[in-house]
Amino acid sequence: MSMTQQSRKAVVLVSGGLDSATALAIAQDQSYDCHALAVDYGQRHRSELEAARRVTAAAGVPLKILPLDLRAIGGSALTADIDVPEAGTTGIPVTYVPARNTILLSLALGYAEVLGADDLFIGVNAVDYSGYPDCRPEFIAAYQLMARLATKAGVEGGELTIHTPLIDLTKAEIIQRGTALGVDYRLTVSCYQADDEGRACGACDSCRIRRDGFRAAGVPDPTTYR
Amino acid sequence: MSMTQQSRKAVVLVSGGLDSATALAIAQDQSYDCHALAVDYGQRHRSELEAARRVTAAAGVPLKILPLDLRAIGGSALTADIDVPEAGTTGIPVTYVPARNTILLSLALGYAEVLGADDLFIGVNAVDYSGYPDCRPEFIAAYQLMARLATKAGVEGGELTIHTPLIDLTKAEIIQRGTALGVDYRLTVSCYQADDEGRACGACDSCRIRRDGFRAAGVPDPTTYR
Repeated sequence: MSMTQQSRKAVVLVSGGLDSATALAIAQDQSYDCHALAVDYGQRHRSELEAARRVTAAAGVPLKILPLDLRAIGGSALTADIDVPEAGTTGIPVTYVPARNTILLSLALGYAEVLGADDLFIGVNAVDYSGYPDCRPEFIAAYQLMARLATKAGVEGGELTIHTPLIDLTKAEIIQRGTALGVDYRLTVSCYQADDEGRACGACDSCRIRRDGFRAAGVPDPTTYR
Repeated sequence: MSMTQQSRKAVVLVSGGLDSATALAIAQDQSYDCHALAVDYGQRHRSELEAARRVTAAAGVPLKILPLDLRAIGGSALTADIDVPEAGTTGIPVTYVPARNTILLSLALGYAEVLGADDLFIGVNAVDYSGYPDCRPEFIAAYQLMARLATKAGVEGGELTIHTPLIDLTKAEIIQRGTALGVDYRLTVSCYQADDEGRACGACDSCRIRRDGFRAAGVPDPTTYR
């Protein structure tokens, strides 16, 4: 491992969930100097942010939490007063937050520019992705092209890269990869309506995908259900 | 003018400045049903937001102000504790806010998605643009490509358009166009360090470009200097 690789800064978007905890572990395994960014966008499941604090503390990585109250524009079951669906859904679910990954990546891009980082990590996944348009590889590719034109680094010839190490993995493969890297998934919260202690409902889309993932991975599910 | 055109919704990014006030007037002149969005990103010149309220009230357009405290990530003279330069500068100035237009457009995209709008207006300008990378036409084109992949509308075949009606205009041409459309530029604030009453310093880059613009347009400068 060269010194250059060891000192490369990366901004890692974290949510407190299973995927971003794994993406962070992968970025660290690739010897990036990781700077975590979480966005407090007024999400219902406040315990996510507590999980983001636990995950980054366990990884020994600094965490910035940026407040952005998306409730001002509404439009999602996660930020507005719409019920979270408990049955399996088809199409784009109401839990979709409008333009969420576009917004998260934009904030990460700003933070990367401040830090002088050319690398962003985001734990998007196109397999068990709940039908969100902004988790698709073609979206990420277009975002990277845009981002290279958006910043000083782009003007000055820098090469911003958006890393999506989970994009082609199944949930089971993500869990296996993270487990091999020592991620403690007890620290993470995936549930769309976790309670204040981070206990999962076991009924929402996100809980269902997570539980099926542990089962398929052959890894004991450490989630605390209420 | 058809009913369809009259009822098309557009999100218009407003800052309280001269350019966005003109972009709003142009969008209204094109019969869009305009919804203004301003972002309170912790800018030094708080009187900008007051100007945004005056400009949208005069236009009879609803305004959302979204709080986003970019001071958490710092990096600009407009949001961090760095002095605003008063001499003409070359290259990208310290008043550049990291990834600002990327972030603003992302928030506008989220709001557009909530409203069901396929049109965004932003008053960027590539002529008197102070050297910001995210005011260039190639950036806007790349952003639009990305945005069409980012949202439900994109997945469902909608065609999001980013309108930049000022991009090829000089400041003088912008002022002439806005004056013809009845924009009252007394309501706007351009100064990077305006005081609480919105009075301009007359010395920063933005004041200089604005004053030169009125002079070149042959329009009396209504700015109140302190």
